[in-house]
Amino acid sequence: MHIGIVGAGLIGVATARELSRRGHRVILVDPEPLSGATHAAAGMLAPVAEVTYDQDDLYPLMATSARMYPDFLAGIEADAAYRTTETLVIAADAADREFLATLAEFQRRMDMECEVITTRAARALEPNLGTAIAGAVRIPGDHQVDPRRLGSALLAQVLQSGGEVRRTRVKAIEEENGPILRLAEGEDLRVDHVLVANGLNAAELVDLPIRAVHGDVIRMMMPAHRDHLITSTVRAMVQGRPVYLVPRADGSLVLGATSREDDLTGVSAEGVFQLLRDAHRILPSVWECEITELTARARPASGDDVPIIDRVADHISVAAGFSRHGILLAPIGAQLAADVVLGEGGNGPLAQSVRLGRFNHSPLEHSTRK
Amino acid sequence: MHIGIVGAGLIGVATARELSRRGHRVILVDPEPLSGATHAAAGMLAPVAEVTYDQDDLYPLMATSARMYPDFLAGIEADAAYRTTETLVIAADAADREFLATLAEFQRRMDMECEVITTRAARALEPNLGTAIAGAVRIPGDHQVDPRRLGSALLAQVLQSGGEVRRTRVKAIEEENGPILRLAEGEDLRVDHVLVANGLNAAELVDLPIRAVHGDVIRMMMPAHRDHLITSTVRAMVQGRPVYLVPRADGSLVLGATSREDDLTGVSAEGVFQLLRDAHRILPSVWECEITELTARARPASGDDVPIIDRVADHISVAAGFSRHGILLAPIGAQLAADVVLGEGGNGPLAQSVRLGRFNHSPLEHSTRK
Repeated sequence: MHIGIVGAGLIGVATARELSRRGHRVILVDPEPLSGATHAAAGMLAPVAEVTYDQDDLYPLMATSARMYPDFLAGIEADAAYRTTETLVIAADAADREFLATLAEFQRRMDMECEVITTRAARALEPNLGTAIAGAVRIPGDHQVDPRRLGSALLAQVLQSGGEVRRTRVKAIEEENGPILRLAEGEDLRVDHVLVANGLNAAELVDLPIRAVHGDVIRMMMPAHRDHLITSTVRAMVQGRPVYLVPRADGSLVLGATSREDDLTGVSAEGVFQLLRDAHRILPSVWECEITELTARARPASGDDVPIIDRVADHISVAAGFSRHGILLAPIGAQLAADVVLGEGGNGPLAQSVRLGRFNHSPLEHSTRK
Repeated sequence: MHIGIVGAGLIGVATARELSRRGHRVILVDPEPLSGATHAAAGMLAPVAEVTYDQDDLYPLMATSARMYPDFLAGIEADAAYRTTETLVIAADAADREFLATLAEFQRRMDMECEVITTRAARALEPNLGTAIAGAVRIPGDHQVDPRRLGSALLAQVLQSGGEVRRTRVKAIEEENGPILRLAEGEDLRVDHVLVANGLNAAELVDLPIRAVHGDVIRMMMPAHRDHLITSTVRAMVQGRPVYLVPRADGSLVLGATSREDDLTGVSAEGVFQLLRDAHRILPSVWECEITELTARARPASGDDVPIIDRVADHISVAAGFSRHGILLAPIGAQLAADVVLGEGGNGPLAQSVRLGRFNHSPLEHSTRK
């Protein structure tokens, strides 16, 4: 089958690779591949730390996808960008500690591996942590990957196995003895099936209940003379606000966690200030770092933060709304999306959990709108 | 005369124009023209606000140069980048207010135009100023220019009047029946006189008592719906730390004022945090701005913050060490440097004040070192 994939973010690219592996021909259409949320993401693979209450459908997807990661990366160059260093979650004050302790209890009840440790034990693991922290949780199974290197490596695989990339925008999807992609410069592209995987822009092509949640990300270099300030991924709650610090093998440090549903698409001054202030409380030596990049992107989020992977018409499927879990969910997302496109796979609980039918929403009437 | 100018920052370029105007042939040598301190600078033309105690030699240079600005800009495109909006200096707390009030008294004793006003009057002038400010001084004569637009416009003039630019590095200056510039790729350039105006790098060619004072600059866009948050240049003292906010006509806002003598040449996380925190105290709506650029550059500073403009050998002159006053001092700097190169001009107090002889330092023995 010849499958047109609209959107070459990590989900589009990973699904393209999965479809190639299953013997199909793919063409990715994107004006700027891997430039969206994938470009901003810190790449925490954190099924445990990302768990929140009332998201029971999300955890099985996250846990399954995390287990798939080593196989997902096997044989590709980005293998080096995968780090199995553990995650430490730090509470800044007593209220943060209580929140984390209750969450850890909930996580353990769900059989997740996590351990409440003393702040002294946390500082033994990461000696540069601030002295004024109130609590810590250790999560050995939450790892990280570099999304930029991962995305490029997957895309290279797609191209190597005969897949194509067309750097343009899809104006509309129409149907005329099979689906047609109307490209921005006027050309039409005929395929057998279309997968719409262009995140927020999916709403231009297929009406979906997806909203933009903006996030600011700071990239820094740790001071060369300090031999890496931290080796674990450090997540923290600071007076109820989340912040994460993800150290890479090359000495860089990725800071993030703002969630803005405002209309500022660029980097928010307030967001940058908050991240620096909260990170400094947890790891005072961030002051010594050099800021090398500021990025802001929108995370495309569905109403329940679970992605939408489903058919919306005979020859049109969607894989979108991965919220802040797109990197972690790429392996399972690619598999479920390929199943949906090909009409293969079962109807198990994971496949059910990502169906559009859970929302009171019908995109069909809009599926071919311009 | 054919004059080789090493360094195409604002001082080098402005002096090249001055020498062209006086009928001489110039060649600027710089691997990346206008990419140093000029690229970072906010462009405050603030002879009054920049005054500090114990810098009696600096003020006459600054005041003279500020008066030269309209003529300096006459007939060039960057005229539009010159704004004669006034400067407001804000004190964050009572100690800052006392510091500013005493300084204002000193400034008035030196016949500078400035007026201590109430915070209510300041907020009438700039309604978005924070409510928790402690004092204000109004300086009508301190204006601003956009150094990037100014630099490009001056460089265009130099090229138009027959000047040249060579994009390479000067490895050494030697003397062999006249000065020779040894260029990085091996070529030699013979000229009649050399002006060394490459800031910090001048030390590679001519030993000078100049040190690096790093500064971080944040460029932002004011929110489009708020019709420019401020129209005056706002400078402030916040618990003894300076911060400035320079609004441009295009809706952008330039934030700066850190002075670091550390070894971090890139953008400092602590610097960015401090600027955002202190600016927010003065103008809370900076939170709504979008950060569009972070820049860090070294200001080449002499021991007394007064530039060094002098001959160091028969055919070698220097114009360097403009500290944080390079943009304001460009008109007078270009004139004094051209005088020194040509052996013209008088020996008045301004020319005397920039002589190297005031330091106990002889660069002559090193003037042709590699």
